[in-house]
Amino acid sequence: MPTDISPSSTVSRSELRELVQRQLELLLEQKNYEGAKALLIPVQPVDIAEAIENLPETMQVIGFRLLNQTTAITVYEYLEPKVQVALLEHFKEQEVISIVENMSTDERAKLFEELPAKIVRQLINHLSLEERQATSLLLGYQPNTAGRLMTPDYIALKQNLTIIEAEERIRRLAQDVEVSYYLYVTDEQKRLVGIVSLKDLLLAKPEQIIEEIMTRDIVYSYTNCDREEVAQLIQRYDLLALPIVDQEQHLLGVVTVDDVLDILEAEATEDIYLMGALQDDGDDYFQANLFDVVKKRIPWLSILLLTNSATIFIMSGFEEVIEQVVALSFFTPLLIDAGGNVGAQSSTVVIRGLSTKSLQGKKTTWVILRELIAGGLLGLIMGIVVIVGVFFILGKPDIGLTVGLSLLVITILAATTGAGLPFLFKSLGFDPALMSAPFITTVVDILGLFIYFSIAQAIVMNGA
Amino acid sequence: MPTDISPSSTVSRSELRELVQRQLELLLEQKNYEGAKALLIPVQPVDIAEAIENLPETMQVIGFRLLNQTTAITVYEYLEPKVQVALLEHFKEQEVISIVENMSTDERAKLFEELPAKIVRQLINHLSLEERQATSLLLGYQPNTAGRLMTPDYIALKQNLTIIEAEERIRRLAQDVEVSYYLYVTDEQKRLVGIVSLKDLLLAKPEQIIEEIMTRDIVYSYTNCDREEVAQLIQRYDLLALPIVDQEQHLLGVVTVDDVLDILEAEATEDIYLMGALQDDGDDYFQANLFDVVKKRIPWLSILLLTNSATIFIMSGFEEVIEQVVALSFFTPLLIDAGGNVGAQSSTVVIRGLSTKSLQGKKTTWVILRELIAGGLLGLIMGIVVIVGVFFILGKPDIGLTVGLSLLVITILAATTGAGLPFLFKSLGFDPALMSAPFITTVVDILGLFIYFSIAQAIVMNGA
Repeated sequence: MPTDISPSSTVSRSELRELVQRQLELLLEQKNYEGAKALLIPVQPVDIAEAIENLPETMQVIGFRLLNQTTAITVYEYLEPKVQVALLEHFKEQEVISIVENMSTDERAKLFEELPAKIVRQLINHLSLEERQATSLLLGYQPNTAGRLMTPDYIALKQNLTIIEAEERIRRLAQDVEVSYYLYVTDEQKRLVGIVSLKDLLLAKPEQIIEEIMTRDIVYSYTNCDREEVAQLIQRYDLLALPIVDQEQHLLGVVTVDDVLDILEAEATEDIYLMGALQDDGDDYFQANLFDVVKKRIPWLSILLLTNSATIFIMSGFEEVIEQVVALSFFTPLLIDAGGNVGAQSSTVVIRGLSTKSLQGKKTTWVILRELIAGGLLGLIMGIVVIVGVFFILGKPDIGLTVGLSLLVITILAATTGAGLPFLFKSLGFDPALMSAPFITTVVDILGLFIYFSIAQAIVMNGA
Repeated sequence: MPTDISPSSTVSRSELRELVQRQLELLLEQKNYEGAKALLIPVQPVDIAEAIENLPETMQVIGFRLLNQTTAITVYEYLEPKVQVALLEHFKEQEVISIVENMSTDERAKLFEELPAKIVRQLINHLSLEERQATSLLLGYQPNTAGRLMTPDYIALKQNLTIIEAEERIRRLAQDVEVSYYLYVTDEQKRLVGIVSLKDLLLAKPEQIIEEIMTRDIVYSYTNCDREEVAQLIQRYDLLALPIVDQEQHLLGVVTVDDVLDILEAEATEDIYLMGALQDDGDDYFQANLFDVVKKRIPWLSILLLTNSATIFIMSGFEEVIEQVVALSFFTPLLIDAGGNVGAQSSTVVIRGLSTKSLQGKKTTWVILRELIAGGLLGLIMGIVVIVGVFFILGKPDIGLTVGLSLLVITILAATTGAGLPFLFKSLGFDPALMSAPFITTVVDILGLFIYFSIAQAIVMNGA
């Protein structure tokens, strides 16, 4: 029996994975293939895939060929697209066909998305007619929709089957499908009419028929549904899988909960990137080369640079004021940063609230008004601290009052804008995360500087 | 048969929920309880819970009492803690006992966390000994650990059972457990030794025993494991549930994938809030009253205000320079914002990369160096644009050169700091998201202003 490589409480699972990684490389260098095979036997497929990805490119094919057929397919499905493509180039034609033919349909569709069209055409020809149709069906849908994500590998039952007949059918098909814990009940036209779980089957009396034990109130979705909505349905209704139908209710496929975990993570990353003024096209930032990185980041930076230049003109408009009391300029960074921080806080809660649907019961005006008042309270506290601080440390009450007052106004402005602009963007049909901290900061800076120097003009120049 | 209220392609599911909401309120106002009962029959429990939450408080108890016992328990588990507590106060003692006794153990533990200790003690006394022990066990673990999240409602099998005996056992227990698609195999001491799926059972020959068909390579976790790690294990290995053991491998409970969806969302929210300079204690921001909101936001704002005040002293140190060329001050907002945006981009990708473990194979120095170079390229592009812009629009090549050069240095600084500080924080054992955009902006501002005016002193004053 191979050594049990479960983690103990002292060795973490990730440390174990590193150990396996190093051992594998060592054994392959020594050409000890039997040892390498034995090493991999108790390892989970996703971990084997990661180990192969981290091998030097020349060793990856050898590492992969250590695996038996079933494990090889599962491991292949877990590999990064880059490595999947590289391996295909090294494989003999028969190996390629064997893998591609036996992959699950949704994973094959994902692979075909990454390959050049020429290669896809060659590979498609090697598929059985059934597999070719299933794959083409998936690829016919828009990326990131339920249709593209779903797998057609589920089990359908007819309503009039007895429990025994149903179990027979499941036994025949279960080996080759991805989802067997839910069984979907369809009518003669293949329309979805009910759902049964394996547990329901087990608890039923043998003489009953499916129609008697099935649930008719099914949660389902349409093929053109956005992946975010699919994820939210599965999350909201605690499902293990979501059936996908066309506009006439014909059952076409199923999206499983493990896909949803990845979707939720990708959607959160997309929001987080947008809130940090970055494009996110779904590719790994750390895989891209430096020119792609610059291409990814310069759009937002350019837009922000352009809009920010308005601050230059505002300040030059108040040139006289600044010349007279140079010290006024010392406080612009403080005011700008404070406005930025408050705006960031407000926009963060609103954008995230919209994203997680936790704002659904609340009125927009209530949220914005609340932020306005909160901004007022926060600005009051910070304003008083500043007035006192400037008075005691710099001994300039006029300037202190100007800065403190401006801080109050800027804070209210920042909180209100920070809360309001995401709502505005959403109502215009845009992603609220786009109207995020960097943009709000720019708006607040421009208005805030104008307010600050206007107040300064009133207070300080009249006193001076 | 009640009307089928499945969504069509024209009416969305959320519109349907609103319809049900309004109908329910109407029927209850008219005291048409039979109609209200019929309305709710095809509605999913989580949607019934939301409808009850949105009822006026006086109607909530009546709405809840429309439900049959089984549905009532499930709906109760979905209610917000606030409403759960309110209902308990209205229920008769027998109703309270009936609900609390029949809740699933992990949901009951969650409820007890929300209730005042006095009430919990009363309720605990009404539980059966078994339920009381199970609940106390869960509450004995730290919040947000596997021990607190797990449910003890799973099915365990012995290795020597035949398939028929196993199915018998499952039939007896399946009605009352949460997880029946995975069956956990334990030895005489209740240590976890294997796992079997319902599908495996169905495909096995009746004369086999469990030991022959079980999988020994199990992914599991310990009771003191952080909820984030639990979520990552379930996500990585595509599990529907994760078994939880103690230090001696005794099986104590199971965390299900639906909990993980909620964990992933909560963890993402925590990160997003931190990156927006907000505390996140898990409570809904929009449920808190205004004083709690101010309490939540003022700590970070105060710290940032304090650290930002260093900018005042830096600029006052260069008072002569600014007095001589007042126009220099016009560009401070632009430089600060540009630095802030670049720093936000860099810190965002690094913090998110650490969070999703996508940085695990990469060396820290490589990531930081890469950001440094990217910052240099971005700064070069932006610097040239600024130099040209200032030259053509303001006609001041000296100032243009100063600003452009400073922009380059500030951008490199911002990218490097933005990437490096999260790593530093992580190595010191802190949450990298803490060292987020607001903090990095402050650091970059202080250094950036110093660099800007130093360069200005060199270029502009020597020329002037």
